[in-house]
Amino acid sequence: MACGEFELITRYFDRITSSRRDVEKGIGDDCALLNLPEKQTLAISTDTLVAGVHFLRDIHPADLGYKALAVNLSDLAAMGADPAWLTLALTLPEVNEAWLKEFSDSLFELLDYYNMQLIGGDTTRGPLSMTLSIHGLVPQGRALKRSGAKPGDWIYVTGTLGDSAAGLALLQHHIKINDPAAHEALIKRHLRPMPRILQGQALRDLASAAIDISDGLISDLGHILKASGCGARLHLDALPLSGVMKSHFDPEQAISWALSGGEDYELCFTVPEINRGALDVALGHYGVPFTCVGQLAPQSEGLVLLENNRPVERKLKGFDHFG
Amino acid sequence: MACGEFELITRYFDRITSSRRDVEKGIGDDCALLNLPEKQTLAISTDTLVAGVHFLRDIHPADLGYKALAVNLSDLAAMGADPAWLTLALTLPEVNEAWLKEFSDSLFELLDYYNMQLIGGDTTRGPLSMTLSIHGLVPQGRALKRSGAKPGDWIYVTGTLGDSAAGLALLQHHIKINDPAAHEALIKRHLRPMPRILQGQALRDLASAAIDISDGLISDLGHILKASGCGARLHLDALPLSGVMKSHFDPEQAISWALSGGEDYELCFTVPEINRGALDVALGHYGVPFTCVGQLAPQSEGLVLLENNRPVERKLKGFDHFG
Repeated sequence: MACGEFELITRYFDRITSSRRDVEKGIGDDCALLNLPEKQTLAISTDTLVAGVHFLRDIHPADLGYKALAVNLSDLAAMGADPAWLTLALTLPEVNEAWLKEFSDSLFELLDYYNMQLIGGDTTRGPLSMTLSIHGLVPQGRALKRSGAKPGDWIYVTGTLGDSAAGLALLQHHIKINDPAAHEALIKRHLRPMPRILQGQALRDLASAAIDISDGLISDLGHILKASGCGARLHLDALPLSGVMKSHFDPEQAISWALSGGEDYELCFTVPEINRGALDVALGHYGVPFTCVGQLAPQSEGLVLLENNRPVERKLKGFDHFG
Repeated sequence: MACGEFELITRYFDRITSSRRDVEKGIGDDCALLNLPEKQTLAISTDTLVAGVHFLRDIHPADLGYKALAVNLSDLAAMGADPAWLTLALTLPEVNEAWLKEFSDSLFELLDYYNMQLIGGDTTRGPLSMTLSIHGLVPQGRALKRSGAKPGDWIYVTGTLGDSAAGLALLQHHIKINDPAAHEALIKRHLRPMPRILQGQALRDLASAAIDISDGLISDLGHILKASGCGARLHLDALPLSGVMKSHFDPEQAISWALSGGEDYELCFTVPEINRGALDVALGHYGVPFTCVGQLAPQSEGLVLLENNRPVERKLKGFDHFG
């Protein structure tokens, strides 16, 4: 009987770490079996990460295990969903046990943090890549969608923007800064993004639309505008930049990263005027800033970028694998 | 804004072909949103297919689109589940529109046949591979598992075994037969396996355990034996072989393929004596043969292969990517 593949999977991924009562059968049968709570909607998102495309080939396996899941969690955050189950399809060029241990330890640490369970997947041989499918639950009718925003709603983002792009540029030696702590901080923002799960859940009844910023604010706000049939006025001087960003890079570079750098994994969301007070209360105690960066407008106005309240032009491009 | 990737996905994969009322949001947001029926258990299975490992590099895209889904459906069949939703993560070396059209047309034809909906996925650039996550529904407490079989239960398989392995050997020019119709038939069994969805559902209250035969009968029956804590007596002379197989290959070769060739995607299941009559009625009208090939025994007896009721030895090996 074949052993190698199954033993490999068992040793590193078949860990009973969660006590989720909705998992009737996890890894180890033809399918996983999940019992669903009533009056909840299932939210599912799938992400593929390919070595050399979505992550640097020399990434530490612990960083990869963390980030692969964090990116997936960020999609749930954008729907206001509560994380539940994960499937992982892992394609490996070889069996490297040290790599597998560090990758899986890191993945399970984050799974445990969110009380999630790995319920299945596949392990195959080939060029390093992985596909994660994340499953979350959200009370019926309360999921945050990209559609639903209206002209007049205010545009917000969580956290600070552009740090991840700066961190990637540092990792790729495209830029250099002579401040080890700042260097470290930016790289951490690239390798260890914090999915805004709690914020997403707090926004369920307050935001009219939401998306996570994976491709850059311009590109992802663009998805809200398209799905909701709106235009927008975006104030570049309002974009939240980290202290590290402001002290080490000129404003043009910082704003360019904030607009189109990508991989921030912050939330961009829209809030009707009437909910702004409740928003301040709901997000105020999480310790993560949230900033109003503009306002939605009629679709005919398109997306207008403003600096000192004056329209400005910028050449920008979102991330596109086949562009 | 980035267009290429999104347009590509939209054009070939964002088809509204199904009228599933449980899909609140399909492709086009951060997550798909699914509304779940009450008293149903969700069954999820994930399969990765890599070019050169799981399919021949020169496979026709229509055959690949069919088989990728059929293999996934077979896992649902083995649980007795009703197919519902699919996510597809597709990694492509390049944008080849003719390829995409044939692949997606074939995939959607099979999706439609089972009233399934593609609810999301990802498209990335890289070496050709794909990961499918299939979601099905099964009434609570009625899913077929690998565990649950008991000594004395009878072992059955659907269809005929070994044809797919013979078809693969033909495709790889390892063997040759001078009968075009037989050649065609065996290759079709390899490229277009029929998932036994209806049979799986009919077995819900009759079978004590079930699995689909993807790695070969020995390997997959072995999973039932391990999960159920049983041994088995398997009658090699009872293994169902197709007419084509019997007329073109010697019995030793045919039985070797039937035991360990893999990719049959038939069901192997166990039935208590008391359910055998009901089984004949339940599966009798599907037009697909089902054959008793042995009986479960106490675990201490292990797996015994018999020919003319006498134990025989065979060197066999299941499929193992890292073996």
